[in-house]
Amino acid sequence: MPARAFLNCILYLKPLALLPNNLFNNAYDSPCMPRLLRDVGEREAIEIVTKILDQDDFPLGLKDDCAAIPMGNNYLLISTDMINERTHVPVGMSPYDMGWHVVAVNLSDIASKGGKPIGLEVAMGLPRGHDVGFLEDIAQGMDACARKYGTAIAGGDTKECYEVTLVGTSFGLVPKSKIMLRSGAKAGDIVAVTGELGGAACGYHSLKHGLDIESAVRRLFQPHPRLAEGQALSRSGVATSCMDISDGLASSTYQVCAASGVSMEIEFEKIPAAGEISQIEFVPKEEILLYSGGDYELLVTIKPDGFKKARAAVKRKGGELTEIGKVVEVEETNKLIRGGEIQLLENRGYEHFR
Amino acid sequence: MPARAFLNCILYLKPLALLPNNLFNNAYDSPCMPRLLRDVGEREAIEIVTKILDQDDFPLGLKDDCAAIPMGNNYLLISTDMINERTHVPVGMSPYDMGWHVVAVNLSDIASKGGKPIGLEVAMGLPRGHDVGFLEDIAQGMDACARKYGTAIAGGDTKECYEVTLVGTSFGLVPKSKIMLRSGAKAGDIVAVTGELGGAACGYHSLKHGLDIESAVRRLFQPHPRLAEGQALSRSGVATSCMDISDGLASSTYQVCAASGVSMEIEFEKIPAAGEISQIEFVPKEEILLYSGGDYELLVTIKPDGFKKARAAVKRKGGELTEIGKVVEVEETNKLIRGGEIQLLENRGYEHFR
Repeated sequence: MPARAFLNCILYLKPLALLPNNLFNNAYDSPCMPRLLRDVGEREAIEIVTKILDQDDFPLGLKDDCAAIPMGNNYLLISTDMINERTHVPVGMSPYDMGWHVVAVNLSDIASKGGKPIGLEVAMGLPRGHDVGFLEDIAQGMDACARKYGTAIAGGDTKECYEVTLVGTSFGLVPKSKIMLRSGAKAGDIVAVTGELGGAACGYHSLKHGLDIESAVRRLFQPHPRLAEGQALSRSGVATSCMDISDGLASSTYQVCAASGVSMEIEFEKIPAAGEISQIEFVPKEEILLYSGGDYELLVTIKPDGFKKARAAVKRKGGELTEIGKVVEVEETNKLIRGGEIQLLENRGYEHFR
Repeated sequence: MPARAFLNCILYLKPLALLPNNLFNNAYDSPCMPRLLRDVGEREAIEIVTKILDQDDFPLGLKDDCAAIPMGNNYLLISTDMINERTHVPVGMSPYDMGWHVVAVNLSDIASKGGKPIGLEVAMGLPRGHDVGFLEDIAQGMDACARKYGTAIAGGDTKECYEVTLVGTSFGLVPKSKIMLRSGAKAGDIVAVTGELGGAACGYHSLKHGLDIESAVRRLFQPHPRLAEGQALSRSGVATSCMDISDGLASSTYQVCAASGVSMEIEFEKIPAAGEISQIEFVPKEEILLYSGGDYELLVTIKPDGFKKARAAVKRKGGELTEIGKVVEVEETNKLIRGGEIQLLENRGYEHFR
């Protein structure tokens, strides 16, 4: 299954002490247990599932941000993302924020393919001892985010669950000729990002260290899917690939490069940084800008002569597009240019299970 | 949100002792907690959410088995259902069964509207200490069920979770003129069901009492969505309403009647009973046939002179359709005719949270 929308920085807040194993039903664990999910990590787990399922039923396979099902001149885009209380929800995140969040992260996948959303379903698993107001607040947050982005919740499911678990599924449409895939980047293309990076990571560090940087916490709790920007880029005709950087810029560059058969050189000083970074001096800036997630901006590659056109299209929608590097012929690793020196851009970000 | 696909009987197997409250993040519980989800129950919880979200964005609103989004001459049908390890999974259910199950219950909703499936997404939350083989088996079960019913898994999400949680979302298409809704039943119509009822409940009792009735356990673990039957009924032109009876026959009759503004009289002796019922003598037959769930058959109403045509259409697809009663003008309750006597058909089934 596609490696979609991983809330990098949020996850570090999960309880350090795992609950004792015997609280869970381990009837299915084999006695020898040669390989556990924590041994292989999330990306290999995804590969394992993909090999079982992927039989060319769908044009994009299972490795892009969305599934795409041909429907007349359009693709029906579909994406699903799960968040749950103990692995994704930092202390201080309200049920309203959770509702907003699950809708926003699912719309972000539609945005990254250039799609226009047509609705979402949300399955909610809630403990029976929770307040009715908790449920109402989640629904209000879901509704507010969906409506802000011109769509609505079409349905869902409500089940009893031991931990709060929200699973959104978003649907959208994009003309077949306009879809932006992860594959498609070519040597010589310009690499660009929408918005500012690092805001969500600043929110995480603000919460962790009690710094009270409210704007950054808002960025973390209530991300804004770049739907207008994605549609503008897709319609501009100059974007060659796109994905959202929910799991961090560095790891996203590697995912686009793997899908496209290219490499990238990123110029560190060009990365548009969220203003709040100046208040988080105790964390290396590269950790925040390159290896933290939760920003839900778009990473896009653009034809060599198309950047001005793409930026103008995004600006007309009220967004920002910043050039941060270029696509090069495939090499072993991606590069980071910083202070005039060429360094390794590491291929890392958060992985579930590890 | 729609009251979709509740696994009535399965739920009784959940651990009786809830985990202590302080293992969970209760930061959001208000100190006075006037109303908890366990106080209002699932159906009222669904009403609460629906009031917040339902603003006429979609033709069916939020109260049918699927959402329906107009797409040319068709409706795009979408449904989502969550199952999780500790509230839905009986001891003995393998990961392969879980994978099959989450696909089957989601396809059942498409079936009940007369739709043809075009794909599913499945979000999987898994504990990091689980075996890789566990994940592979889930994927194999998902894949097997999807392929048996002519569709495939289009994508999904894999996340770390403290309990196994699977959320499927199914998509399908149905011609606008052919969709079967919950509303549409009229006084005088015939009430019918596909297949046999009570098999899944027998499987539950077999597991609970160690009776080893393998065929019934199979019915419980691996339900078969009635897609061919649903499409045949929809195309026959004589079906006036339909839903799946995943949460039990009695409660489903009330849901169709509420949506249609009618009542029903069900003849107990006409209900087609699974053969395994003869082996579960210690449970009243009406509990199994009327008030247990997990069967995933279709409850359908048919125009007064259309039953032969509908049954023939279902038979051509290899299915069975049995007349079990009739639609009458709206009254306070539905009736059960048994041994020549008219009794109350109770409006009950499993509710989450209670």
